[in-house]
Amino acid sequence: MKKIMITGFSGFVARHFLEYLHGEGLSYKVLGADIKEPELDLPCHGPVLDVRFEKLDMLDADALRRVVRGFRPDYVLHLAAFSSVAYSWKYPSACFDNNTKIFLNLADALRAEQLDCRVLSVGSSEEYGDVAPGKLPLVEGMPLSPVSPYAVARVAQEMMSKVFVNGFGMKIILTRSFNHIGPYQDERFVIPGFIRRILNLSAMEGEIETGNTGIVRDFLDVRDVVRAYYLLLTEGTPGEVYNICSGKGVRLSEVIEKIADIVGVSVTGKVNPAFVRPGDNQAVVGSAAKIEAELGWTPQIPLEETLKDMVECMRQDGPPAGASCAGK
Amino acid sequence: MKKIMITGFSGFVARHFLEYLHGEGLSYKVLGADIKEPELDLPCHGPVLDVRFEKLDMLDADALRRVVRGFRPDYVLHLAAFSSVAYSWKYPSACFDNNTKIFLNLADALRAEQLDCRVLSVGSSEEYGDVAPGKLPLVEGMPLSPVSPYAVARVAQEMMSKVFVNGFGMKIILTRSFNHIGPYQDERFVIPGFIRRILNLSAMEGEIETGNTGIVRDFLDVRDVVRAYYLLLTEGTPGEVYNICSGKGVRLSEVIEKIADIVGVSVTGKVNPAFVRPGDNQAVVGSAAKIEAELGWTPQIPLEETLKDMVECMRQDGPPAGASCAGK
Repeated sequence: MKKIMITGFSGFVARHFLEYLHGEGLSYKVLGADIKEPELDLPCHGPVLDVRFEKLDMLDADALRRVVRGFRPDYVLHLAAFSSVAYSWKYPSACFDNNTKIFLNLADALRAEQLDCRVLSVGSSEEYGDVAPGKLPLVEGMPLSPVSPYAVARVAQEMMSKVFVNGFGMKIILTRSFNHIGPYQDERFVIPGFIRRILNLSAMEGEIETGNTGIVRDFLDVRDVVRAYYLLLTEGTPGEVYNICSGKGVRLSEVIEKIADIVGVSVTGKVNPAFVRPGDNQAVVGSAAKIEAELGWTPQIPLEETLKDMVECMRQDGPPAGASCAGK
Repeated sequence: MKKIMITGFSGFVARHFLEYLHGEGLSYKVLGADIKEPELDLPCHGPVLDVRFEKLDMLDADALRRVVRGFRPDYVLHLAAFSSVAYSWKYPSACFDNNTKIFLNLADALRAEQLDCRVLSVGSSEEYGDVAPGKLPLVEGMPLSPVSPYAVARVAQEMMSKVFVNGFGMKIILTRSFNHIGPYQDERFVIPGFIRRILNLSAMEGEIETGNTGIVRDFLDVRDVVRAYYLLLTEGTPGEVYNICSGKGVRLSEVIEKIADIVGVSVTGKVNPAFVRPGDNQAVVGSAAKIEAELGWTPQIPLEETLKDMVECMRQDGPPAGASCAGK
């Protein structure tokens, strides 16, 4: 059985990645690594997947190397990251550690163990930075103008990956992933945050606090994301960068309306200046033409369905039926 | 008296920077910080300069912050770096620590102490990476294509600096410095290495081992470099990047001939494949037009004079007369 190591295993993307493998009947030995324990039922994925968890701080290079040496992965899905722009402004140096440095430690460990291993290094649409609305959608060949410490950390990770591909022959495939949303997402993120506030309304109509709801973002269902990640991990071209996005821009205010419709309430947004991020781009919309042309991937789940599943999941304070352990 | 903190204090650039200040009668309180003790006569710079040394590992963020808090610099000349491309290929992660991470720790410390401080962050011509010869000379607006871990670390440092200037209002001025040479330079570098091998010849003619001497580089006298650094530190525009270069390309084989002429011997180069760096650019030549236009800086010391001073310094196993403590 081929072996996949997944870093950032306790996050919601890893959870959906496991469900994707399981649902498709793709048999792998999986080692999940994270600094914190996952809230997952791992045995439920057997016998398709043989999943094991290892607690790991990737800043501890020796511990990371021991794990890599013990498991000898054929694939690494490197999801581990501190992907918060706000955090990066508070702690730029720690942001670098928890993005660039952990990636470098991973690459060092894979090289030291001389593994012929394919790695998916996940980056961010934040790498593009300030782009004039007239230049949208964002395509991979555009120059990068990162405007936050987080974005710079991601650009550094990407540039370093390319250097490793060219200099060491490593098989690192790169993404710039746009906003992804879906069931189980932490409520500190914008869309699940909206849903929680709307579900908490005590009447059939009400007001929720928001940031700037005039901004336009490109939202993709996390289940479409993990399908793209699997394709890239197994078939993407090392050294190449792929946008992972829906290709469609949606205003946050529209998303709020859609959620209100699903919940069956009437909602007014009220801007709380504390939620407004200064320097936020007016519009971020990507083009997924490259991954479509190379690997035939296109998004399949419409935004309405994603939001419906998220609402259902949060209403039950758990997953929608059948989703907690795909294939069960 | 205004205060300058100099990191990487035990290197040869810091030594020349002190001599420049002293020679120009520019009075400062100087705190030199380095992981290793400098081989310098510090009291000889008094009373113009009040120089003190502090042993410091900049990866120790707490220690760095204590030093910054104690000294409260008005200026930081940030020279500390592990500026070896070869080292970066061996230890990419350590290369990031000793370039990007120490810079981030410095920036964190300056912000934490809320110092209104001007910082010169030294970068490298390596940041440009692979550029077709037809596109020379290198100008600051060109896209960056770093091709070594060292180059990526420098690009990350530069991008992060710009983010700090825009986001925090920090006053960081940036350079991309090309090859600089001069007295006291470590013999592991290419030009002093040539000089040592030529001085070691036992006859009036002989052979020395070299790498690829067909490559063209842009050499600048370190005394021109430190004059540029002082100008930028005091008058450069925060967030702006300045090439520090001669603007002239010279083939390594020509440099060897010039040294042989100065020493008065006849030399043939013999390529030792171990000295050839794979992936090295054929030609690296910069344009210094930006710093000339903004600050009136131009190089003043011709290559022949630099080489003569280096030969004299290495013949005496010490400095040329009058140069060990300028103004004495």
